Amino acid sequence: MKIGLVGLGKMGNNMRARLKKGGVDVVGYDTNPDVSDVPDYAALAAALSTPRVVWVMVPAGRITDSVIDQLAEVLEPGDMIVDGGNTKFTDDEVHGKQLDAKGIGFMDVGVSGGVWGLENGYGLMVGGSQEQVEHLMPVFDALRPEGPREEGFVHAGPVGAGHYTKMVHNGIEYAIMQAYAEGYELLAASDRGIDVPGTFKAWQRGTVVRSWLLELMVKALDADPQFADIDGYVDDSGEGRWTLEEAIDHAVPMPAISASIFARFVSRQEQSPAMKAVAALRNQFGGHAVKA
Amino acid sequence: MKIGLVGLGKMGNNMRARLKKGGVDVVGYDTNPDVSDVPDYAALAAALSTPRVVWVMVPAGRITDSVIDQLAEVLEPGDMIVDGGNTKFTDDEVHGKQLDAKGIGFMDVGVSGGVWGLENGYGLMVGGSQEQVEHLMPVFDALRPEGPREEGFVHAGPVGAGHYTKMVHNGIEYAIMQAYAEGYELLAASDRGIDVPGTFKAWQRGTVVRSWLLELMVKALDADPQFADIDGYVDDSGEGRWTLEEAIDHAVPMPAISASIFARFVSRQEQSPAMKAVAALRNQFGGHAVKA
Amino acid sequence: MKIGLVGLGKMGNNMRARLKKGGVDVVGYDTNPDVSDVPDYAALAAALSTPRVVWVMVPAGRITDSVIDQLAEVLEPGDMIVDGGNTKFTDDEVHGKQLDAKGIGFMDVGVSGGVWGLENGYGLMVGGSQEQVEHLMPVFDALRPEGPREEGFVHAGPVGAGHYTKMVHNGIEYAIMQAYAEGYELLAASDRGIDVPGTFKAWQRGTVVRSWLLELMVKALDADPQFADIDGYVDDSGEGRWTLEEAIDHAVPMPAISASIFARFVSRQEQSPAMKAVAALRNQFGGHAVKA
Amino acid sequence: MKIGLVGLGKMGNNMRARLKKGGVDVVGYDTNPDVSDVPDYAALAAALSTPRVVWVMVPAGRITDSVIDQLAEVLEPGDMIVDGGNTKFTDDEVHGKQLDAKGIGFMDVGVSGGVWGLENGYGLMVGGSQEQVEHLMPVFDALRPEGPREEGFVHAGPVGAGHYTKMVHNGIEYAIMQAYAEGYELLAASDRGIDVPGTFKAWQRGTVVRSWLLELMVKALDADPQFADIDGYVDDSGEGRWTLEEAIDHAVPMPAISASIFARFVSRQEQSPAMKAVAALRNQFGGHAVKA
Repeated sequence: MKIGLVGLGKMGNNMRARLKKGGVDVVGYDTNPDVSDVPDYAALAAALSTPRVVWVMVPAGRITDSVIDQLAEVLEPGDMIVDGGNTKFTDDEVHGKQLDAKGIGFMDVGVSGGVWGLENGYGLMVGGSQEQVEHLMPVFDALRPEGPREEGFVHAGPVGAGHYTKMVHNGIEYAIMQAYAEGYELLAASDRGIDVPGTFKAWQRGTVVRSWLLELMVKALDADPQFADIDGYVDDSGEGRWTLEEAIDHAVPMPAISASIFARFVSRQEQSPAMKAVAALRNQFGGHAVKA
Repeated sequence: MKIGLVGLGKMGNNMRARLKKGGVDVVGYDTNPDVSDVPDYAALAAALSTPRVVWVMVPAGRITDSVIDQLAEVLEPGDMIVDGGNTKFTDDEVHGKQLDAKGIGFMDVGVSGGVWGLENGYGLMVGGSQEQVEHLMPVFDALRPEGPREEGFVHAGPVGAGHYTKMVHNGIEYAIMQAYAEGYELLAASDRGIDVPGTFKAWQRGTVVRSWLLELMVKALDADPQFADIDGYVDDSGEGRWTLEEAIDHAVPMPAISASIFARFVSRQEQSPAMKAVAALRNQFGGHAVKA
Repeated sequence: MKIGLVGLGKMGNNMRARLKKGGVDVVGYDTNPDVSDVPDYAALAAALSTPRVVWVMVPAGRITDSVIDQLAEVLEPGDMIVDGGNTKFTDDEVHGKQLDAKGIGFMDVGVSGGVWGLENGYGLMVGGSQEQVEHLMPVFDALRPEGPREEGFVHAGPVGAGHYTKMVHNGIEYAIMQAYAEGYELLAASDRGIDVPGTFKAWQRGTVVRSWLLELMVKALDADPQFADIDGYVDDSGEGRWTLEEAIDHAVPMPAISASIFARFVSRQEQSPAMKAVAALRNQFGGHAVKA
Repeated sequence: MKIGLVGLGKMGNNMRARLKKGGVDVVGYDTNPDVSDVPDYAALAAALSTPRVVWVMVPAGRITDSVIDQLAEVLEPGDMIVDGGNTKFTDDEVHGKQLDAKGIGFMDVGVSGGVWGLENGYGLMVGGSQEQVEHLMPVFDALRPEGPREEGFVHAGPVGAGHYTKMVHNGIEYAIMQAYAEGYELLAASDRGIDVPGTFKAWQRGTVVRSWLLELMVKALDADPQFADIDGYVDDSGEGRWTLEEAIDHAVPMPAISASIFARFVSRQEQSPAMKAVAALRNQFGGHAVKA
């Protein structure tokens, strides 16, 4: 099988390598000519045989919109676009309809695994029809981890379901990271002569909390046992927020995931306006000193 | 009626003034000779007629323990000590037993109102026996706000109940402050040309959220509309923590009050160890840049 | 001044009464002919002199959309519609543009006060132009509480600002209610012989937590001291959810308000799917018994 | 090596089996004569050669206190007791001092792994001196999982550190379970035709959220895909509460772990007193109907 791949950044480049290793031929396009296999979208289309499959692996939002628009200009009825980025599931429906009007198919795939995917394989959550999924299976099989297919790949549902399940995956991920982080902070604060890195290391086998994220925590503590060179400033990619918005919309209580998102928001504030307000109130009623 | 009052700081001094205005004679003692009416505990005891009543208004913990110890040396069976500080309710039981062994009575009073109490009166929550409460009623009537007694005074229960209800009062107070603070932060962030101080001012009459704390918020915004001169650093006095510990002990869910306590903890951290851990994890799996 | 008022339910009917008491003439229209002053929208328009002002006081969402559509059919350029319902601020922009295309003015007003507004006056948060606000001032003055105008009324900002500030008001209200409720639950659980209703009653004067909601809590406890006849099932009106969505959108941490919303979500579940999952997990790793 | 083992319930029995498989001879004692190797504590002591080692594996609290008291009667100076139960770390200090007065050594071990430990090995967190740890290493090596010792065993620190780190482990565990549970509830509620069990199954390889608890979630969903036969009622064993208390004591923000504990508290309430209070308040201000 031979597919097009738009976006050869950190993720796209690794995916190209894994696809090739798995026997899938890839024609890559990127706006950076140093890494691109072809000069433009027309050349990308020309390099593929019909029905073409083009996998889009670019930042979510306007960039993905624009790439899909430009691909729609060069593709033909019967071709298919696969969005493997971190697109919001509601955009999938828009893209799907837009492409359907031109006879072009559309699928969405949530891809997990980060920089480790090249080696470990990528966890794949796919939205689309049964027929589409079967057509792309050689691609999915090349990307997904070794082992039984259903343990690293799911046809999650219709278009949008791939990104929806990936979104929830990331919401869960936020709260798991927060869980380890809260435990770490308490152990580090406990002042009882506890071997904190050794404790995390020992949790890797036999315990209830063993996980891949724990293994990464061990690596991180090996590299910097007190996180002395790391700033407690944490971005969020959007998927946690969407998860929380969906929870609100469905009246699903989400106290732990929301806590992990709010902790990230706070981490990015030099000063908390809310805490300024609380400090001001305490000063008003109790004459408590205010730092300025 | 004539009582002793130990502790003539910000609170004690104002309370002495309000007691005198309310017809209660006060002999004050403080370690600071400039404000003390008598040179020592013996002189305090000598200045009161039996059965003596001494109100203690000093910081909770070891200082309160020490004052009660020293008073126990100079008082006699039949006398009574009233602890009006922010003592933990579990200490009340200890103090009560300790004094009971000497025949000295003990009551605990939670006192609310801060620097405004001199003018507005103090909200009083009292722990002790029915007989004790009746004996002290002239003192309570002088301290409490104008209006019906039961709207600013309660015999909350046996010894410990005064501080227990004051503790819960403070837990509630934390969460109410947090509520206004979160709303303030959103309004300030909304970037829609909203008159934020004017909005808080307008909430003072007719709305569901009108309260005394709202009025203080309006005063604070009048003085500094963007809290430019206030640091978002907020201490906690212990009572919020004890409220949460009691909740844990009774399996009472307390998500809003705990959130307001945790927000204070975070406000005092230069760097969050937990967020360092999350940043380190993100760097491990996604190659996300880490600020240093 | 004479205005039209569409919607004569619990709120609208009370507002009509207060407007008339304040010297504003009202022509009311409701789909219920028993309370309506006129048979239809055309008759409503005919009963008002130009430039007409029609205040809409109906449920947010499709009903408000439909009323505005129908009013737009019978009003003329220069007339004005005021939406006093609980509309989402994003809908205000849609309504404003839609009406502007016909030369009809639009304002949004957040109205607080519930069933007590007839007697106490309504807290008003207004979105619109300075000119519009001045034109409607006699109406606002009739509706708002006694006392200084700025303590019960605010021109919060441009169109949408009225509903936006009312939305945040409601978010704050949720968390304040949750604060009292958590404190109540702990006091009720404490098993220390505490007079719980008496304690809430005593907090009404002199304390830091005194508020109008506290007074309502006292009324509720007077009526039913253990809430024996009340089900712990709590709806939410949407404004709390929108507040939280806005917080997410602006990266504003909102732990206490979100906690109060999630507590309502949980209160409406017969069984929590999340807790089923936790119970299933505990059974898997610990052999803990599972209730069925 | 030959040790005594008190407590042959679900955990103790499995541990005896794994110890024997690992070459450690075990004399077991239990109050249930059907499973006990010896009739009483004296016989247990008599069956072991000095310096004796007795591992205690009974429920935390009064039962553990009582077993340690009784062992202290039959052991001699130079012997050692190892508490492998879920004892609170503050009790370890008490037990340590009590035994030290008799010349008997004491160690605490946090044991993770549940019913899977027999097969997988037990994650071990140990508190004690370096000398004690080395003496017991054959026992730890028999119990811990295959693989490098430091990945399933840690000498966490002095007496108390074993149970302290196990306590934090369990706090983290609560929040991780809550994370998956919240994600599950949203997926189940999403109504988008999503294959929920298939999605969890596919997360087992390649994704960021893969973990042992995820594998158990997959097993649980295999057995009952909608948790139809499981009640959403979740106990807590105490260690989560102690984790939160320690966090409060050290001013460590713990929003996600606290949320997971509160969710369990709520899960056990037929009716929430707090939500009754909120419902009562809404009825007071808005005339909202109250369910009874």
